Amino acid sequence: MIKVLSSGNSILNQYISELRDAEIQKDSLRFRNNLERLGGIFAYEISKGLSYETKEVITPLGIANVPMLVEYPVLTTILRAGLPFHQGFLNFFDKSENGFISAFRRHHKDGTFSINIEYASVTEIENKVVILCDTMLASGSSMVLAYKELITHGKPRHTHIAAVVANLEGLEYVKKHISKNDITVWVGAIDDEMTAQSYIVPGLGDAGDLAYGKKL
Amino acid sequence: MIKVLSSGNSILNQYISELRDAEIQKDSLRFRNNLERLGGIFAYEISKGLSYETKEVITPLGIANVPMLVEYPVLTTILRAGLPFHQGFLNFFDKSENGFISAFRRHHKDGTFSINIEYASVTEIENKVVILCDTMLASGSSMVLAYKELITHGKPRHTHIAAVVANLEGLEYVKKHISKNDITVWVGAIDDEMTAQSYIVPGLGDAGDLAYGKKL
Amino acid sequence: MIKVLSSGNSILNQYISELRDAEIQKDSLRFRNNLERLGGIFAYEISKGLSYETKEVITPLGIANVPMLVEYPVLTTILRAGLPFHQGFLNFFDKSENGFISAFRRHHKDGTFSINIEYASVTEIENKVVILCDTMLASGSSMVLAYKELITHGKPRHTHIAAVVANLEGLEYVKKHISKNDITVWVGAIDDEMTAQSYIVPGLGDAGDLAYGKKL
Amino acid sequence: MIKVLSSGNSILNQYISELRDAEIQKDSLRFRNNLERLGGIFAYEISKGLSYETKEVITPLGIANVPMLVEYPVLTTILRAGLPFHQGFLNFFDKSENGFISAFRRHHKDGTFSINIEYASVTEIENKVVILCDTMLASGSSMVLAYKELITHGKPRHTHIAAVVANLEGLEYVKKHISKNDITVWVGAIDDEMTAQSYIVPGLGDAGDLAYGKKL
Repeated sequence: MIKVLSSGNSILNQYISELRDAEIQKDSLRFRNNLERLGGIFAYEISKGLSYETKEVITPLGIANVPMLVEYPVLTTILRAGLPFHQGFLNFFDKSENGFISAFRRHHKDGTFSINIEYASVTEIENKVVILCDTMLASGSSMVLAYKELITHGKPRHTHIAAVVANLEGLEYVKKHISKNDITVWVGAIDDEMTAQSYIVPGLGDAGDLAYGKKL
Repeated sequence: MIKVLSSGNSILNQYISELRDAEIQKDSLRFRNNLERLGGIFAYEISKGLSYETKEVITPLGIANVPMLVEYPVLTTILRAGLPFHQGFLNFFDKSENGFISAFRRHHKDGTFSINIEYASVTEIENKVVILCDTMLASGSSMVLAYKELITHGKPRHTHIAAVVANLEGLEYVKKHISKNDITVWVGAIDDEMTAQSYIVPGLGDAGDLAYGKKL
Repeated sequence: MIKVLSSGNSILNQYISELRDAEIQKDSLRFRNNLERLGGIFAYEISKGLSYETKEVITPLGIANVPMLVEYPVLTTILRAGLPFHQGFLNFFDKSENGFISAFRRHHKDGTFSINIEYASVTEIENKVVILCDTMLASGSSMVLAYKELITHGKPRHTHIAAVVANLEGLEYVKKHISKNDITVWVGAIDDEMTAQSYIVPGLGDAGDLAYGKKL
Repeated sequence: MIKVLSSGNSILNQYISELRDAEIQKDSLRFRNNLERLGGIFAYEISKGLSYETKEVITPLGIANVPMLVEYPVLTTILRAGLPFHQGFLNFFDKSENGFISAFRRHHKDGTFSINIEYASVTEIENKVVILCDTMLASGSSMVLAYKELITHGKPRHTHIAAVVANLEGLEYVKKHISKNDITVWVGAIDDEMTAQSYIVPGLGDAGDLAYGKKL
């Protein structure tokens, strides 16, 4: 199932528009801040489908029966571009455990590239609700590789895959490689095209470079 | 129209539950942080009803037609308890102009009290969308007084009144004193009772004291 | 005693320079963020003179004898311009109690103005270390009035007065009206001139308007 | 050269004490927040030794000659434990470029372990001032390995190595393996002992687990 958060308008669209704007991108503080705010919004929307149970809390003036989150989802992200988006999720799910996975593009002489997993630091995910977030979902291969790496550490009860901007082709790729019963995909916007180097068009460019500086 | 954000479950309920808990309240950093996060969530939900227009932005890889907020709402709050909640709105509506109004409880010898407006620092609100937020809506008299003060500075196009915890009686009071065409009321939770001193029961106690220390 | 934090260079100077720049000021998010960061730096520098006592804490691997702050200072500020600077202090002194005082310029027909205190919400300050912060210290009259208001609520053990940009004349005014044994003054930068309307030159303009929008 | 920031008391000591406390550690939001605040303080102290040049900026009321940072340092950190500390540096050096390096402990059957570099995503560092930060400096081998990895990407003009808590033995190890002309070491506190598994005693436990959850 694919949920497109920009289908109804909200301030989320303003943030995505600012992320795309080549002029506004020059302020990397705002660029990262927009990704953090988007992470908060995604976290909130995903939280609507989580489980709550009524507990009794003692207030200074009485007793209240209030709904509390049964279990915090595990927050995982793909390095390095996913970090500010992940931070936004963590701001909202402050008690969550976390995982970090690195996916690296290895460029070949013929102009093609392959994606490798080099680093994975993951907490217990067996039978947990997991969120796997990355800023962009272009070809979909990083996301699928990260997911495959993730499930070598345990079997999540359900995984929410989240991306700010996605490409139609990439969404198809995810659909093809991960059973639709296992995941829900959340995206902020869907763009139609992709370059030969798997950058989304119009997209926003290289999210990692824009947040953290041009990688050598 | 009254919109109750806790009617469907979300992480918002977790934050309100933590705000109520007399143990968790001892950590004023978390108390303020929960109010900020709630301000962000209210801002986001209110933003779904604002106006957007499609603009062209130039990305590093192309041209995108994207929806952008036509006009930021003016954010106003009641001192001092409303400040952390207001900060959450401002985190999300970073380009908004702001207003601050102080409502002060004057306690009389017979145990009753009246509420006075002492300070109002407000930007242009004529024909603007305005958000007026306060942490608690108990008797409703602070909120109504602040609103009445506000409209001496101009006539807003529409005003969103927002409170984390409200009391039924207070909501009735607001309804009685402000035309329902002029406002939308957003609340996080509704409690049934109120003490003689107009504290909501079970509520969460004195939000200003909990955020900033016991007032002399 | 006057401590000028910009006398040795540090990133503090970068923030003050950005606050001054009429172009960069257009981004009110960055303007407020710079004030918050400066509040953090002032808090840290002031914290070097506070009292600490060694306490035993149990770590997961042993027992450590560590220095902990004996008493958090009370943080007070002048509305509305002081709020983002105060937020920076509160980020660093998260357990502090707080006070808010409003000083209002009443403009007279002859072009002069007087400053009135309208609102004061202050926690217990008797025998406490107090920080009184405002973004600008121009003529010094707001700061002196706020201090005089403050000490009607109790006698602080010592008060640290903090301002991002100060004027020489204003510093003289403070010195003349408050005993030098009672206060330490901390400033980020000192400018020489002042307009007839008591705006510091070159200064940065109206800090309240820049942070929160032009006041009616 | 080793600079020990806790040698004079400041609020930095309060944060380190809270990080150590097994009870306070249960709140991972505060744990990460303390690391972020410490990153800000380290950034500020390091910034005192950076280069500034006077530039002319136009304020709304005149022209100011102000000192601005000539060049932002490159901020690099070791995954995953260094991330919240690094975030604090980035909050203060918002225009900096960044690098991320993963160091992984590979535990051997005989109880010993070796540290491997798996992932390095680094921006241009040639002739730049670089900050390499990690929460703990225990045996020193992660830090030295990360540094050695770093300089395969270019030769920094100078590198500041920063750690919240360090061990004497680890500081000796760094001194032995990196020329003292190339680096300045900044630490928040120095502890005497270390376990066979290279955890600092009394230290604070496993910083990565405390910030992000127990790693599988």
